[in-house]
Amino acid sequence: MANSWETAAFSEAEKEAVYRALLTRRDIRHFRPDPVPEEVLERLYQAFHAAPSVGLTQPWAIVEIRERATKEKVFASYQKARARERALFEGKERQVYDRLRLEGLLEAPLHLAVFQRPVARSLGHHTMPETLAYSVVLAVGNLWIAARAEGIGVGWVSLLHPEEVERLLGAPPGYRLLAYLCLGYPRAWPEEPLLQRAGWRPGGPLLRYQERFP
Amino acid sequence: MANSWETAAFSEAEKEAVYRALLTRRDIRHFRPDPVPEEVLERLYQAFHAAPSVGLTQPWAIVEIRERATKEKVFASYQKARARERALFEGKERQVYDRLRLEGLLEAPLHLAVFQRPVARSLGHHTMPETLAYSVVLAVGNLWIAARAEGIGVGWVSLLHPEEVERLLGAPPGYRLLAYLCLGYPRAWPEEPLLQRAGWRPGGPLLRYQERFP
Repeated sequence: MANSWETAAFSEAEKEAVYRALLTRRDIRHFRPDPVPEEVLERLYQAFHAAPSVGLTQPWAIVEIRERATKEKVFASYQKARARERALFEGKERQVYDRLRLEGLLEAPLHLAVFQRPVARSLGHHTMPETLAYSVVLAVGNLWIAARAEGIGVGWVSLLHPEEVERLLGAPPGYRLLAYLCLGYPRAWPEEPLLQRAGWRPGGPLLRYQERFP
Repeated sequence: MANSWETAAFSEAEKEAVYRALLTRRDIRHFRPDPVPEEVLERLYQAFHAAPSVGLTQPWAIVEIRERATKEKVFASYQKARARERALFEGKERQVYDRLRLEGLLEAPLHLAVFQRPVARSLGHHTMPETLAYSVVLAVGNLWIAARAEGIGVGWVSLLHPEEVERLLGAPPGYRLLAYLCLGYPRAWPEEPLLQRAGWRPGGPLLRYQERFP
């Protein structure tokens, strides 16, 4: 392989940095008010947009939200969804649930509403059309890891009714809310996942089989 | 923030390494036969398993495939899917399609069939149940980026009929093929995405809006 930035092998120090970003990335729910600098955001977008996409479709679009009024509407949608989910739990589980912080919508200086958009037919997505959505998820993952390296926290808020957010943001037909992200400098960088620390559930081992399922 | 591996800020050199992994990751389709060393695979799994998952569900499982006979059966499934997709294209598009290498199934020393598995009810996935599948995609993304740092190529083969692969590998009820990956040392590290180089389509700019869709 040629010895260029694109193709050269990674040094031990470079590998270590990549693993540090992957293993210490967290879902952040407590933010400081300082804005995300524009030049940092541009780098995060570079990482986002470099994600692999099936058939090179790049089937994504982003809406940036900074206005308080919009954040409050999204927060109201979250509160409804949370109240409904809460009703699924009882006893000790509900007690833990009630203590959990599941978003940082009103604190975060920047929200990114990430959409899957309609794209012209390409290749590779006909037997598994869900790979179009998965391409957008890979882009979110890229941004999340770059953000860790930049010291920017990202929180993925999944307790939302997507149609409500789509309506609120004026999504064109065929545009589907795929992920709703809060971004900002975190108040602290948790050493372990918050749900683990809060006693919601411990993580388990990786399930790994040889050749076929047993 | 405390000055630990988990929480400290990234140096400029560390940031650069992370961006290099994110921006030079490729979808690889030409592999050398050398096996992926077990200690490298363990590190890739550590990255995979450290992915964020909704409600800390870790809704994934992996089947490793090294046997030639299984690889050939998956390749046969791919060939059928490709022939059917080919019929969708005409003229110049079909000519380009016919020249494209879309997988490295018979060359790659290791295949990973990544499954979404059923999990006990947790939190965060009731209004957007697709976030369970998306968690598995984030894990695949983590492994893909760690693999770049390790010099291991990953190719995601999406031209498969998932039910065929599920049957072939004896997937238990509720287990769904989410991604089928080829792993190995690449014959070369492409400087740009293969579909771009092959003239399938150029990439476009990132679509980015302020506050709401125009």
